[in-house]
Amino acid sequence: MKRREFMKAAGLGVAASGVAMPAIAQSTTTINWRLQSSYPTSLDTIYGACRVLSQAVAEATDNKFKIQVFAAGEIIPPLSIVDGVQNGTVEMGHTGSYFYIGKDPSFAFGTGIPFGPNTRQQQAWFYHGGGNDLLNEFYATYKLYHLPLGGTGTQMGGWFRKEIKSKADLAGLKMRIGGLAGNVLQRLGLVPTQLAAGDIYTSLERGTLDAAEFVGPFDDEKLGLAKIAPYYYYPGFWEGAASLSLFVNLDKWNELPPGYKSVLNTAAGYAAADMLAKYDAQNPVALRRLVANGAQLRAFPQDLLQESYKAATALYAEIGASNPTFKKILDHQMAFRNQVYPWTQISDFSYDSLMLLAMRQN
Amino acid sequence: MKRREFMKAAGLGVAASGVAMPAIAQSTTTINWRLQSSYPTSLDTIYGACRVLSQAVAEATDNKFKIQVFAAGEIIPPLSIVDGVQNGTVEMGHTGSYFYIGKDPSFAFGTGIPFGPNTRQQQAWFYHGGGNDLLNEFYATYKLYHLPLGGTGTQMGGWFRKEIKSKADLAGLKMRIGGLAGNVLQRLGLVPTQLAAGDIYTSLERGTLDAAEFVGPFDDEKLGLAKIAPYYYYPGFWEGAASLSLFVNLDKWNELPPGYKSVLNTAAGYAAADMLAKYDAQNPVALRRLVANGAQLRAFPQDLLQESYKAATALYAEIGASNPTFKKILDHQMAFRNQVYPWTQISDFSYDSLMLLAMRQN
Repeated sequence: MKRREFMKAAGLGVAASGVAMPAIAQSTTTINWRLQSSYPTSLDTIYGACRVLSQAVAEATDNKFKIQVFAAGEIIPPLSIVDGVQNGTVEMGHTGSYFYIGKDPSFAFGTGIPFGPNTRQQQAWFYHGGGNDLLNEFYATYKLYHLPLGGTGTQMGGWFRKEIKSKADLAGLKMRIGGLAGNVLQRLGLVPTQLAAGDIYTSLERGTLDAAEFVGPFDDEKLGLAKIAPYYYYPGFWEGAASLSLFVNLDKWNELPPGYKSVLNTAAGYAAADMLAKYDAQNPVALRRLVANGAQLRAFPQDLLQESYKAATALYAEIGASNPTFKKILDHQMAFRNQVYPWTQISDFSYDSLMLLAMRQN
Repeated sequence: MKRREFMKAAGLGVAASGVAMPAIAQSTTTINWRLQSSYPTSLDTIYGACRVLSQAVAEATDNKFKIQVFAAGEIIPPLSIVDGVQNGTVEMGHTGSYFYIGKDPSFAFGTGIPFGPNTRQQQAWFYHGGGNDLLNEFYATYKLYHLPLGGTGTQMGGWFRKEIKSKADLAGLKMRIGGLAGNVLQRLGLVPTQLAAGDIYTSLERGTLDAAEFVGPFDDEKLGLAKIAPYYYYPGFWEGAASLSLFVNLDKWNELPPGYKSVLNTAAGYAAADMLAKYDAQNPVALRRLVANGAQLRAFPQDLLQESYKAATALYAEIGASNPTFKKILDHQMAFRNQVYPWTQISDFSYDSLMLLAMRQN
C-alpha cells in the first residue's frame, strides 16, 4: 500500500547506520497539537471524527501525542482552515477542502466533485489509486499535508419550497448551495447563494430563499426545514461522495517522528471509516423521522440530471483549459471512475438491485 | 462510538484512585504475538491485511507490540483458526468466520449471510448498529474476541461450465460452494461440494465439477478458470458483503494493556478499510483482463434469485427455531438491514443509477 510504503521509507528502517545505537524512541517525544474544525459540536458526526482521531492517537502514545480539538471559530474562522494551517496558527485543521476553491478549483477534489466517483470508489482512488498522493502534490504548494478524514456517503439534494418538475423550474430559483455545484446549477438558471447554516430557516420562511442543501437526513434534521421547505430531493449529485479533509501543516508533518506519522495515518483511516459507518447507521433513522414530520421525498427529474451532467462536463473543460493542475487531477480521477463503474455495476449495484426487488416482493 | 466507550471504560480513566501515581506506561510492556492466517500469501489482498495490521501496531508502539504473521498452514491448519486461537496455540487468527458454521451456524454472521446487508450496511451494523458487540457475546462462549478485519465487497457468483438460463439448470449441478450458501442452493437442486482452491481447475477440466465460486475478479484470476468454465456469474448473492474476522484469544485480549487494546482496535479498523479500498481498485482491472481472456459475464436469472431468497428465508427460520443465538443475531441484523435499505436506495443506489445512465449516454 502506498501510504505504508511511504512509512517504511520514512520510518523504522532509519536507524540502519553503521553504529549500533538505540532507536530514538517516540515515547520520549511529547507533542501538543491543536486541531481546528470547521464544524460546530452540534454536527456531532463530522466534529466527532476529530475526537475519535484525537483519542486514538492519545491512547496509542500513552498520551504523549496530544491533539486538542477546537470547534468552529474557537481559534480561527470556520472557513479559514487552510490559511490557519498553512501559516501555522494551528498544526491541523478538519474541513471540507472544497470550501477553498476560491484559491484554486483544484481544492474541490479533496471533497469530491459533481458526478465524481461514489464513496467506495473515491476511497479506492485516495488510498490505492494514487489519488491522495496526487492531491498531496497540489496541497504541498499550500504547505499542507492531506489525510482524508471521514465521509458522509451520497448526500441529499436539499430542501425546496416548491416541487421541481423539470429543469425549467430551476430558472431564477435562489438556492443555498456552494462550490462547483453552484457553478453547475447556475448554468441551468439557478441563482446560487452562500449562507450560514443558522440563517437558512429564516430565509426560507421569509421567502428570500427558495431552496437549501446541507448534508443528509441526520444533520439536516437539526435545521428543521420539513415544514417550510418540505420537498426533499435526491440524490445530491454534486456530492455522490463527500469526504472531509484533515490538513496538517507540512513543516509540522515533516518534523513528526516516523512512529507518530504512522499513528496519525492509522488513526485517520480508522476515524474516517468510523464516521461513514456512523452516518450509515444514523441517516436511515433520521430519514424515517423526517418523513413522519412532513418531508416529501422527491427524485430530481431526469432532464435536470442530464443537463447538469453536461453542464458539469463543460465546466470542467473550461477550468481545465487554464488550470493544468485541475486538469491533471480531473483526468486521473475520471479515468479511475470510468474504469471502476463497470465493476460496481455488476457487483454491489447488482446486489442492491436484487435486494431492493426481493425486499419489495417478500 | 461503542468501541471507544469501551476503551474509555477500560482505559485512560483507570488511574483515578486517591493516590497520585504514575500511569503504568504501555511503553514498558513488550509483547510478542503470533497471528495465523487462513490464507496463503498468494491471496495478497486478504493476507496483506494482516501485514498492514502488524506494521501499524509495531509502528505505533515503537516495535514493542510485535505481531508475527503466518501464512496458511504454517502453525495450524488453514480452517482450524477458531480452535487454535481458542486453545491459545496462537494469540490471534485471521479467517472467515463462516468456515466454522459446523460448530454453530451463528459463526456465519461474522462474514455475512446470503441476502444480508451490503458492505457499507454491514460495517454500519458492526460498528454503530451494535452488531459487533452482539457477535462478541456469542464469540465469548468460544473464548474469542472479534474485530472485523477487511472485506471484499460483493463477490462474484463463480464460474460455470455451462450457461444457467433458469433455476431448473441448477438441478444436479456439482458446485464448489460452502457454508449457508451451499445449504440454500441445495434446496434448488444443486449439489454443493467442498474443495481446496488448488483442486478446482483439474476438477472442472475433468468434468467432475460443474461450477466453482471463489472471491472476485482479482483473486479469481489466479485460478485461471476462464477457458474451462467461461460463464462468470454475478452477483454472488450469498456474499453481498463478505467480511474477514480477526479473532483474538479472549484471555490474551483481556490481559492487554488498555493502550495496546486501543492500538489493535484502531489498526484493525484502518486495515479493514484499506483492504476494501485495495479490492475496489484491483477488481475492475482484473475484470477487464478476465473478459479479454474469454470470461463470459452473465447475470443470474431472476427466477433463480427469487427462489434462492425464499430458500434462504426458510433456512434461517429452521435454524433459528432450534438455535436462539442464531435467531437473536439474525433478527437484529435483518431489522437493521430493513431499516437501512430505503436510505441506501435514495442515496448511493440512486447516485449509482444516475451515473451508470449518464456515463452510457455521454
